[in-house]
Amino acid sequence: MNAHLPLIADITDPQLTQALQHKLDHKTKPLGSLGRLEQLALRLGQIQGTASPRLEQPQMVVFAGDHGLAARGVSAYPSDVTWQMVENFLAGGAAVSVLARQHGLALTVVDCGVARDIAPREAAPGQPSLLLRKVAPGTNDASQGPAMSVGQCAQALTNGMELVRALPGNALLLGEMGIANTSVASLLLARLCGLSLAECTGAGTGLDAAGIERKRAVLQQALDVNAAATAPLDALAALGGYEVATMVGAVLQAAAERRVILVDGFITSAAVLVASRLQPHVLQRCVFAHRSGERGHQLMLAQMQAEPLLDLGLRLGEGSGAALAWPLLPSACAILREMASFEAAGVSGQTAAA
Amino acid sequence: MNAHLPLIADITDPQLTQALQHKLDHKTKPLGSLGRLEQLALRLGQIQGTASPRLEQPQMVVFAGDHGLAARGVSAYPSDVTWQMVENFLAGGAAVSVLARQHGLALTVVDCGVARDIAPREAAPGQPSLLLRKVAPGTNDASQGPAMSVGQCAQALTNGMELVRALPGNALLLGEMGIANTSVASLLLARLCGLSLAECTGAGTGLDAAGIERKRAVLQQALDVNAAATAPLDALAALGGYEVATMVGAVLQAAAERRVILVDGFITSAAVLVASRLQPHVLQRCVFAHRSGERGHQLMLAQMQAEPLLDLGLRLGEGSGAALAWPLLPSACAILREMASFEAAGVSGQTAAA
Repeated sequence: MNAHLPLIADITDPQLTQALQHKLDHKTKPLGSLGRLEQLALRLGQIQGTASPRLEQPQMVVFAGDHGLAARGVSAYPSDVTWQMVENFLAGGAAVSVLARQHGLALTVVDCGVARDIAPREAAPGQPSLLLRKVAPGTNDASQGPAMSVGQCAQALTNGMELVRALPGNALLLGEMGIANTSVASLLLARLCGLSLAECTGAGTGLDAAGIERKRAVLQQALDVNAAATAPLDALAALGGYEVATMVGAVLQAAAERRVILVDGFITSAAVLVASRLQPHVLQRCVFAHRSGERGHQLMLAQMQAEPLLDLGLRLGEGSGAALAWPLLPSACAILREMASFEAAGVSGQTAAA
Repeated sequence: MNAHLPLIADITDPQLTQALQHKLDHKTKPLGSLGRLEQLALRLGQIQGTASPRLEQPQMVVFAGDHGLAARGVSAYPSDVTWQMVENFLAGGAAVSVLARQHGLALTVVDCGVARDIAPREAAPGQPSLLLRKVAPGTNDASQGPAMSVGQCAQALTNGMELVRALPGNALLLGEMGIANTSVASLLLARLCGLSLAECTGAGTGLDAAGIERKRAVLQQALDVNAAATAPLDALAALGGYEVATMVGAVLQAAAERRVILVDGFITSAAVLVASRLQPHVLQRCVFAHRSGERGHQLMLAQMQAEPLLDLGLRLGEGSGAALAWPLLPSACAILREMASFEAAGVSGQTAAA
């Protein structure tokens, strides 16, 4: 089985970039004085192909899955926390639920491969909704062999593409849940970027130094036993997880549709890393919400030349960092659309002496 | 004439701090995983004296004034831009107008000492409103003598206290406008903290290297001619501006009422610096929105042990950085008030092995 992955076109448009820059430079403010917000405005305009970008019906999607690796003690929490947190997302009590509500983000939770069955339910309007897209009840233990088969991985990719196709709006916020998935992100970073596990492995939800050492040893076994899985899709199948693979599909589809993709922390960045190794222009559609406190994230961001918006020492995942950064995106659009120009406002420009 | 400045009490409450920390630690997330947002939640709880802080009717106040120093060519823009921008704030076309509208912040513009008379007007409901609190049409040239008299400074302080007393809500966002007021902030930083002008003086709205050199030379004259003005209020009168002095009064009053004070960039930080040299516990009520791209701001923040929320290279002022950071404050409150605990959500805690 094979997923039909979309080709992601280069959306570079020098004329539009120039028009956006001209528009920003004539707003009533000193040149460049809105700093990184101006770069964000440029990016949003480029993604939407307009000098007046507008964000509509933003969708926060939390991809959930379990990991065979969890049985090897690589996480501070038991696997049961994955389904328990899925219930918590849906009940509205998790950080991402609270923040999505604050900002009017539609919240969808996807069971991509949670070990326990999640009961289907109808969502009340405006409440978080659940999608059941389980490929299998958790991956196999990647320290013993491939986490999933190539066919299972393709199914997850297809699921991700299809679910984004069905979502309204023009912005996708990435979130995830899966006990042991910092291990997966570390493995993908190490394998796809040729970095050592010492650089890529961190505390996750809260391991101590000895715990990190044990985790690193398990991850080394996973790299060794899956030594042949070097191409992006092979690495994703051998070392990834169902929530990560589904997210890769979602990212590719969102990029093909020129949706704005707001990336959260270490795990969602790993999905974007895989997608960008398949289709480099994916990154033109991405905004990185924050620099995580998790070791490895900074390295991963550097691999993608990504400069995130926030740096608040967050390391929760779920999409919480994406939700926190979200208001900056409509701010950037509002600056382009609503600020007056010097001419329109009758404000004097710089003096010649400046 | 003398302003009667309020005493600002120490609001440290170890029992409340413990209750807040306990509440955060039992939310469904790994310990400390919301990073700086948790510190923000602690601060907001401490300011309001409750483990369930709530922000109501946030007020963005933009303090405007002109500066005699502007005639010495210390800014890239002419003084007329001050009143022109006041009109732009009120018409809704400035960055702070756009961002305040986005976030539902009531916007008040105060003429504290603009050179030109601003015509009074009635604000439509929900529109920016104008307060006329002009002490004088701009300060004197501080490179030739004191910028204002002690009596004028006291009047500005009183104006600031009274206008905050009349504002609804429990949060004050600081903004400012005044051509040449980065010069004022640099002077206050140099004088109150014993730093050299070389460290404290930057490009402001966009001076080149030669322009900064000329600015620095003028500011050195101002320090020299006002060498005796070393106490905080004396320095404020001799080297300050009407918008800064009015802001100092506003900050003291807001602190006395235990309002949350959200500080913008270099100039609003200078007002907080002065206020905190008068009443150190003012800082317990402050949240610093961002690290400005303006030289000197980082030094000023360090003097107040302040760790700002954003670092986006902003250097516009107006309150634009405070408006951009604002949503993080209701987020921090929502985390405390709305997130479920492990117990309530039925989520497992860390395993013993962690």
